[in-house]
Amino acid sequence: MLKEAIYHRPKDNFSYAYDNETLHIRLRAKKGDLTKAFLIYGDPYQWTENGWTNASKPMTLEGSDELFNYWFAEVKPEFRRLRYGFEIYSNTESAVYGERGFAKSKSEDIGFYFCFPFLNAVDVFEAPDWVKDTVWYQIFPERFANGNPQLNPEGTLPWGSVDPKPGTYFGGDFEGIIENIDHLVELGITGIYFTPIFKANTNHKYDTIDYMEIDPQFGDKKTFKKLVETCHEKGIRVMLDAVFNHSGFYFDAFQDVLEKQEKSSYKGWFHLREFPVQAFPEPNYDTFAFTHMMPKLNTEHPEVKEYLLHVAKYWIEEFDIDGWRLDVANEVDHEFWREFRKTVKAVKPEAYILGEIWHDSMPWLRGDQFDAVMNYPFTSAALDYIAKGTINAEQFSQQLTNVLVSYPKNVNKAAFNLLGSHDTARILTICNEDKNKLKLLFLFQLSFIGTPCIYYGDEIGLTGENDPGCRKCMVWNENEQDRELFNMVKKLITLRKEHAAFGNEGEFKFLETNNETNHVVYSKKTANETIIIAINNSSDKINVTIPYDFTDKNPVDLWNTEPLKETSKIELSPYGFSIIQLEK
Amino acid sequence: MLKEAIYHRPKDNFSYAYDNETLHIRLRAKKGDLTKAFLIYGDPYQWTENGWTNASKPMTLEGSDELFNYWFAEVKPEFRRLRYGFEIYSNTESAVYGERGFAKSKSEDIGFYFCFPFLNAVDVFEAPDWVKDTVWYQIFPERFANGNPQLNPEGTLPWGSVDPKPGTYFGGDFEGIIENIDHLVELGITGIYFTPIFKANTNHKYDTIDYMEIDPQFGDKKTFKKLVETCHEKGIRVMLDAVFNHSGFYFDAFQDVLEKQEKSSYKGWFHLREFPVQAFPEPNYDTFAFTHMMPKLNTEHPEVKEYLLHVAKYWIEEFDIDGWRLDVANEVDHEFWREFRKTVKAVKPEAYILGEIWHDSMPWLRGDQFDAVMNYPFTSAALDYIAKGTINAEQFSQQLTNVLVSYPKNVNKAAFNLLGSHDTARILTICNEDKNKLKLLFLFQLSFIGTPCIYYGDEIGLTGENDPGCRKCMVWNENEQDRELFNMVKKLITLRKEHAAFGNEGEFKFLETNNETNHVVYSKKTANETIIIAINNSSDKINVTIPYDFTDKNPVDLWNTEPLKETSKIELSPYGFSIIQLEK
Repeated sequence: MLKEAIYHRPKDNFSYAYDNETLHIRLRAKKGDLTKAFLIYGDPYQWTENGWTNASKPMTLEGSDELFNYWFAEVKPEFRRLRYGFEIYSNTESAVYGERGFAKSKSEDIGFYFCFPFLNAVDVFEAPDWVKDTVWYQIFPERFANGNPQLNPEGTLPWGSVDPKPGTYFGGDFEGIIENIDHLVELGITGIYFTPIFKANTNHKYDTIDYMEIDPQFGDKKTFKKLVETCHEKGIRVMLDAVFNHSGFYFDAFQDVLEKQEKSSYKGWFHLREFPVQAFPEPNYDTFAFTHMMPKLNTEHPEVKEYLLHVAKYWIEEFDIDGWRLDVANEVDHEFWREFRKTVKAVKPEAYILGEIWHDSMPWLRGDQFDAVMNYPFTSAALDYIAKGTINAEQFSQQLTNVLVSYPKNVNKAAFNLLGSHDTARILTICNEDKNKLKLLFLFQLSFIGTPCIYYGDEIGLTGENDPGCRKCMVWNENEQDRELFNMVKKLITLRKEHAAFGNEGEFKFLETNNETNHVVYSKKTANETIIIAINNSSDKINVTIPYDFTDKNPVDLWNTEPLKETSKIELSPYGFSIIQLEK
Repeated sequence: MLKEAIYHRPKDNFSYAYDNETLHIRLRAKKGDLTKAFLIYGDPYQWTENGWTNASKPMTLEGSDELFNYWFAEVKPEFRRLRYGFEIYSNTESAVYGERGFAKSKSEDIGFYFCFPFLNAVDVFEAPDWVKDTVWYQIFPERFANGNPQLNPEGTLPWGSVDPKPGTYFGGDFEGIIENIDHLVELGITGIYFTPIFKANTNHKYDTIDYMEIDPQFGDKKTFKKLVETCHEKGIRVMLDAVFNHSGFYFDAFQDVLEKQEKSSYKGWFHLREFPVQAFPEPNYDTFAFTHMMPKLNTEHPEVKEYLLHVAKYWIEEFDIDGWRLDVANEVDHEFWREFRKTVKAVKPEAYILGEIWHDSMPWLRGDQFDAVMNYPFTSAALDYIAKGTINAEQFSQQLTNVLVSYPKNVNKAAFNLLGSHDTARILTICNEDKNKLKLLFLFQLSFIGTPCIYYGDEIGLTGENDPGCRKCMVWNENEQDRELFNMVKKLITLRKEHAAFGNEGEFKFLETNNETNHVVYSKKTANETIIIAINNSSDKINVTIPYDFTDKNPVDLWNTEPLKETSKIELSPYGFSIIQLEK
């Protein structure tokens, strides 16, 4: 038994409240090392000299990444308190593992064990319930649809007439979105994430001038209200982009600092290193990255907090938006986000709070800050395996398992799973324009745990390299849209809605990963239904034996809704897939 | 290289802000596996295709526990942002370790690395500055001194006339403490932790009846005010015990529930499982442990929060107390403690918040909740090695290193290091009344990192088994006090005050642990001074060679203030010790 590989710490993804009565406990061990593992546990105050009675539960092998196995158990402690440890077995030995380390047998000292002191409901991570059933669509408003040419900024080019450059304007606006809302309804979208819409100086609007005003190129507040109402009527939630890490250079408060310098009453709003404050040759104030146009806001300052929290409330209270996506969320202080959460949830308990964080995000997902982060580790794994072919089937399963076990299961259900955004090259382009690969990506994204987001136009086959290439105008001429792709995505979304197991309710598990054929098979399981999905990520036709017993389970091909023989042998065409439904 | 043993997660004890400009980074590896380790790092936005330039720093081996080595590095990133990874070497191979795992060489993808996104001052853990120089003294008021017999509860026994039983009263009170304050002043005490003083039904007062009133057996508010003022005049801070997890059975709100049942306006204040609420045969409400006399408070309820936070403020604002010790702190919700911290620090930024937690406490020590916890893992290691002799020198050093590396260094400095309390047997009794062992315990406690606390009477040799035995009356007849012990403790406290290296400023490191002789040698180091302490935890006289070069360092025996020869060979008597001061 490799003791050095065994890890547990009683919090975060290893030990957490799944709901108000359930604890989840995970244990990490060297891959292939343990033959079985038991959770041994009891109430901290029912301890006797003989320990606890009848308090042992086998753990299940939840999954594996490159180096480790993860073991899992669920327990509902009667008094919401738990002391626990692990009884673990390898081929050659057994041990008991607790907070004080390893012992040969159960300890006589309760202090040896780990502790989950009390399951307090208010501390339980809880994302809004609607999020787990939502299919998101990301709109970059300047490029979605131009509904009112009168709003066009100076120098606006004809829609889609050229490939965009950094400073190009095509005049996308709210009226354009309202006019085209049925495109989203038909696709099955139930949530829109808008990149910034507030007054700013660029086409991307990440350099806010006024957080209380709509950028006039998109419309006015009345039109925005109509847009939100239209979305709500169509069953679509609305999430806006909060750029609170930094303002734009032309934000009034920063302009006041530049003008009045030390006498400015806004000098505490930013991180100024010296006076006179100046942008050149190097900014002598903190910025986003090294961009002098984006001075970092001092979110510890009471007035800044008050202002930004007012902004957060205002757009919910006045326009009934359903969520905030937080730009560069990881560089803002935790304390601010805790107050942000309280403020937002006080005015709309069901609002969704989504942070932009590209790396390990556990510290923001403990229940006191965000409901989710943008799941870029999911993105990389999916793109590397399917679009780029830089990792094999096994690595793909390892990386995704690693993502899943890095967070509590209730956190994973709310994760924002994107394949691309305004910050990355178009997925079809990354797929080298191989549409079959793109289809596999959509299949995987829409059948995975979390809440998927489709970047506008990916569903009709838009291409483009990194910014500005990935921000091309949406194509509205149906003859120029890839309607087959559109219909495929639509069908996948329908499956997600009609089959709990296909969507977020289904427990995800890799059943097979084969590096020779480069195919993977995974299952999504509820109490009543099992869906098995096989993905052939190769240019060869392959024969696959699904490692699952189909007997008496009435297998149905869910894609063609045709009954299948009760055999687990299936054929997959090049870059083909199979979606099989089995009864309980 | 054993990759499975290598661990880092970018938060908590592994990656934290030590102050407003300094980050500390730790890496865990299998014991003895790595020959060297480097932190490779840079600003997230200074990344080029060639990675960072000149951004590598050797890590130092900080210490070892049973299975692991811990490597450490400190860095002050110019823009308060950091991406980083580890370049590690074993005897046979090298690797680069980052958030995405292991690579053979530095990655071309910045996403491979770990991220400390921004050092925001407000998120930095910060205990009050005075705490790290404080020597605490715990008083159990009923047993310290009886200054006003008129306050004696009915049935009070003559002071110290018998060994205490659970329901015994001896009439200890505030006037008694005021009268005897010079005992503490002489000893060198700078902080008192009082177990509960609020109106309650027992001698220990953990079953609060009224959080706004002093228990009349101790005195009234006027006397308490005088007590706090007396302490402050003598340079002694005052910490009270907040029993907020549960109230007493006779707390008005709970009595109201018992009386009015479903009609009680306090029914939301507790966790009631059904009506009628009843205490027998089993309480049908949540309790502390299974004690029906201690109904658990619903600290999520707005009125309960308001009431308890008012209590927290009241005793600071009206009586100028300096800290709160939080009883059963781990069973109360984190959300409550966050609000508690804000409330307390708003009225007294320098107040100390100390949680009673016996197990791994990282989740409460992230800067948003407590300043410290009662360091029971320190207690066990010290008692097991010195008092009980159940672990050897090496295990002792491993367990203490494990405690230290489990938390950030700024957290360790504020840790509340106790050897005993009203909840444990007297340390002299655990030492089997061997005073020499007790002296070693005091030496170790008072020279360790953290803030030491002496349980009343331990300094004059009180004995006693677990509660009620450990709650004997303080002995005031000097002839019955162990004055030699008192003077030794006093001298150690003086050393702590006079030598920064002896106290909290000194970096702690084990230099040697010898299981054959059962001795340990450790150093405490500042930029100007090194103090080396050798402890002979055996009944044999031993000769020890200190593994440290004394040449040109003017060694002085700090205990006898005698110059030493520049030789590292010293002799230690049975259960003897040596404290050696060296110049820079």
